[in-house]
Amino acid sequence: MEKIFIIGVAGGSGSGKTTFAKKVLKGIKNLESTLLHMDSYYLDTQPSENYTSSGKPNFDHPQAFDWNLLREHLRELKNGNGIKCPIYDFKNSARTEEFEEIGPCRVVLFEGIFSLYDQEIRNLLDIKCFLHVDSDIRFTRRLHRDVKERGRSLESVISQYYDTVRPMYQKYLDPQRQYADFTVGEETDVASLILAARIKELLTTQQKMKPATAFEAI
Amino acid sequence: MEKIFIIGVAGGSGSGKTTFAKKVLKGIKNLESTLLHMDSYYLDTQPSENYTSSGKPNFDHPQAFDWNLLREHLRELKNGNGIKCPIYDFKNSARTEEFEEIGPCRVVLFEGIFSLYDQEIRNLLDIKCFLHVDSDIRFTRRLHRDVKERGRSLESVISQYYDTVRPMYQKYLDPQRQYADFTVGEETDVASLILAARIKELLTTQQKMKPATAFEAI
Repeated sequence: MEKIFIIGVAGGSGSGKTTFAKKVLKGIKNLESTLLHMDSYYLDTQPSENYTSSGKPNFDHPQAFDWNLLREHLRELKNGNGIKCPIYDFKNSARTEEFEEIGPCRVVLFEGIFSLYDQEIRNLLDIKCFLHVDSDIRFTRRLHRDVKERGRSLESVISQYYDTVRPMYQKYLDPQRQYADFTVGEETDVASLILAARIKELLTTQQKMKPATAFEAI
Repeated sequence: MEKIFIIGVAGGSGSGKTTFAKKVLKGIKNLESTLLHMDSYYLDTQPSENYTSSGKPNFDHPQAFDWNLLREHLRELKNGNGIKCPIYDFKNSARTEEFEEIGPCRVVLFEGIFSLYDQEIRNLLDIKCFLHVDSDIRFTRRLHRDVKERGRSLESVISQYYDTVRPMYQKYLDPQRQYADFTVGEETDVASLILAARIKELLTTQQKMKPATAFEAI
């Protein structure tokens, strides 16, 4: 069986995880590669203990996610199977009844604010990277996206930032850096090429190894 | 002419720059690659303005280095020429009269505390990386090396640490992270393979491009 490679890309909201992951995918030019967003695994309903003192769900806390399903799906992908990835509705903060079929594939770029958080998931990752971008830049990008693309008010974005985004980043997100094989800042062009080169090498080495394995089997 | 690649590896004393650079060299398995140490370019005599209030030369300050010679040598290597690298005597804190002939070569791993400091040098670098290791680990490694390998006293190592190593790290060294394409921590095995894969790819792409260039020249 061909080896499957899963690459974890973590970092704060607005750190450029998706952009970076897409650059890497473009760099490896492999049709059998895909991008898995951790955002798809937000719980359908946030548990009562995951509400802030101001009465809003804390989407920047680890317990906002469906870890069981996420672990199961990553294991499936790692084992060479396809998954039915949930589709989350950000407007209504609930899981839709639809799914997206993902995989099977050789390379999975798994991006999300807590992609390096869980030990069981870390063990499934072949390469782990963290995007370390200054907080003002992350805030500005998030503000732009939430106001322009998601139609939210300036006030609500700022209040959410101080309520959950900032404290959760400091408490849970930033510490994931310790698990990263490498860290990238704002400029990701060179880093994405470096990572893509390694993934391509892993895919080629794996292919080269096949005849030897077949020989040993005889 | 074949393109020469220079990779800058910066980080504090004890961050593991040389170990990392050697892993990368081992990974690329290219005979035409070399390791250039910035330490070889310490000035023969430290200028009077580079002494601390306690009357000792500040070897952790940018002005402790022979930037003109270093720039010239990196330009020469980048242009496909060899250099006569000075040999520095750490016991006497002076340049010896001997040289080491280095290059010409396809890949130069250039490691040093200020390898990403100078703009002119940064422009010569194809890939820039920074080793970001916690200060206690860096101190312990340095202490071990200076006491065990260089026969220095515990007291002198600690006093130098507070006098120059620590403040210079904060003022001049750490800010170099902003120029790095990627940052690596204590664990460098995966990162060295990733970097090596990219260097090998660059070397191969360059070779593949040759016939096309020759054709265009006609």
